[in-house]
Amino acid sequence: MEIVEIKIKTARTVNLQNITSEIQKVLDQKDSSIDTSVITVFIPHTTAAITINETYDPSVCSDLETAFEKLVPNIPYQHVEGNSPAHLLSSLVGTSITIPLKNSRLDLGTWQGILFCEFDGPRTRTVKIAR
Amino acid sequence: MEIVEIKIKTARTVNLQNITSEIQKVLDQKDSSIDTSVITVFIPHTTAAITINETYDPSVCSDLETAFEKLVPNIPYQHVEGNSPAHLLSSLVGTSITIPLKNSRLDLGTWQGILFCEFDGPRTRTVKIAR
Amino acid sequence: MEIVEIKIKTARTVNLQNITSEIQKVLDQKDSSIDTSVITVFIPHTTAAITINETYDPSVCSDLETAFEKLVPNIPYQHVEGNSPAHLLSSLVGTSITIPLKNSRLDLGTWQGILFCEFDGPRTRTVKIAR
Repeated sequence: MEIVEIKIKTARTVNLQNITSEIQKVLDQKDSSIDTSVITVFIPHTTAAITINETYDPSVCSDLETAFEKLVPNIPYQHVEGNSPAHLLSSLVGTSITIPLKNSRLDLGTWQGILFCEFDGPRTRTVKIAR
Repeated sequence: MEIVEIKIKTARTVNLQNITSEIQKVLDQKDSSIDTSVITVFIPHTTAAITINETYDPSVCSDLETAFEKLVPNIPYQHVEGNSPAHLLSSLVGTSITIPLKNSRLDLGTWQGILFCEFDGPRTRTVKIAR
Repeated sequence: MEIVEIKIKTARTVNLQNITSEIQKVLDQKDSSIDTSVITVFIPHTTAAITINETYDPSVCSDLETAFEKLVPNIPYQHVEGNSPAHLLSSLVGTSITIPLKNSRLDLGTWQGILFCEFDGPRTRTVKIAR
C-alpha cells in the first residue's frame, strides 16, 4: 500500500463535491495491479470531512448542505476563529472511509458517490488515498 | 482479502438490526485462515448505514431509532423522492466500519454488536464484508 | 498486522482527550518495521467514540463537548441505565477510524489530533490499535 494525495478546490462555506472520478483515477494510475481489496480515503483537515451518498440527483447534496448547517446547535462557542460549527460537522461526518474494490475499481452501490464535505470554505484542500 | 456479500431484510422505515452473528458466519466460512487483523463492513446504499452499539438491552436500539428520527432538522427538502432525512442519517452514521479480529473472530467489546441501520425501509439490503 | 491495547482514564461525563502521542508510542514500540500504510483505532465501548479534530486550541475540544451534549434530542428514552444520549453520540461520532502512516508515523494534517470521546464517564477505557 502507498499514500497518494490529490488537491481539490471548494466553492462555498459549506460545499459537498463529488470526487468519485478523481479517486478512481488514482486507482487507475497505479503501475502494478492493486494488491488490496479496500482503499481508505482520509481528509487531513479539521473543518472538512468525507462521506458517501447519492450523487445522481444533485438536490440530495444541496439538501445535505442545508441540513448539516441546521444541525449545528445554536450555543455560544469559545473557539476564537469562530468556526466551531465546521469542527463539529467534521467530527459528526468523519474524516476517514474505507471502501471495497472489485478488479481495481471502486465497488460502490448504484447510487453512491464519494463526497468531499467542505464546512469552512472556499479553500484548496488535500485528500489522501491509501491504495 | 476478498469481498463477500450478505443480504438482510428490514422491517420498518427506521430499523436497526443486529447482524453480528451473520458477519461472524462470513468469517467462519473462509476456507483458509484469515490473513488480516481487521475486517471492513461496507453498506452500498445511500439511505442506510452501519454502526456498533449495545445489543444486550433491546431498548438501546429502539431509543437510537427514535433519536435518529428526531435529530433530522425540520426544513424544506428539495429531493423529489422525499427521503432526504434518510440520506442525512446515512452520512451522519456512516457506511463503513473497520473492526479488529482476534483468532479469526470479531474482537468486539462486551456489550457491542454490529447494527445495520435502515433509514428508508422496509427493503432487502446488501452488506459487503472485506475479510 | 497485530492488535495492541492501551488504557486511558477519563475525567468527566463528556470528555474529549487527545491520545495522539499514546497512539504514536504504540507505533514506535513495534519491533519490526510496520508493514502497513494505515492503522485502525477501534473503541470497544458503546458509550464512547473516536474522532480526529483540532488539538491546537483547547477551546475546540470544549466547544465540541458542549455541542455534542446539546445535539442530543430531548425525548423520553426507555433504556433503564439512563445513558441513551451517550449511546447515541457513540454511533454519531463512531467507534473506528483508519489513519494513513508515513515512515511509520501518523500522517495527520497540521492541526489534527486523535481524540478519545468519553460520553458516560469518568471511567477507565480501552483503545485497540490495529497496526
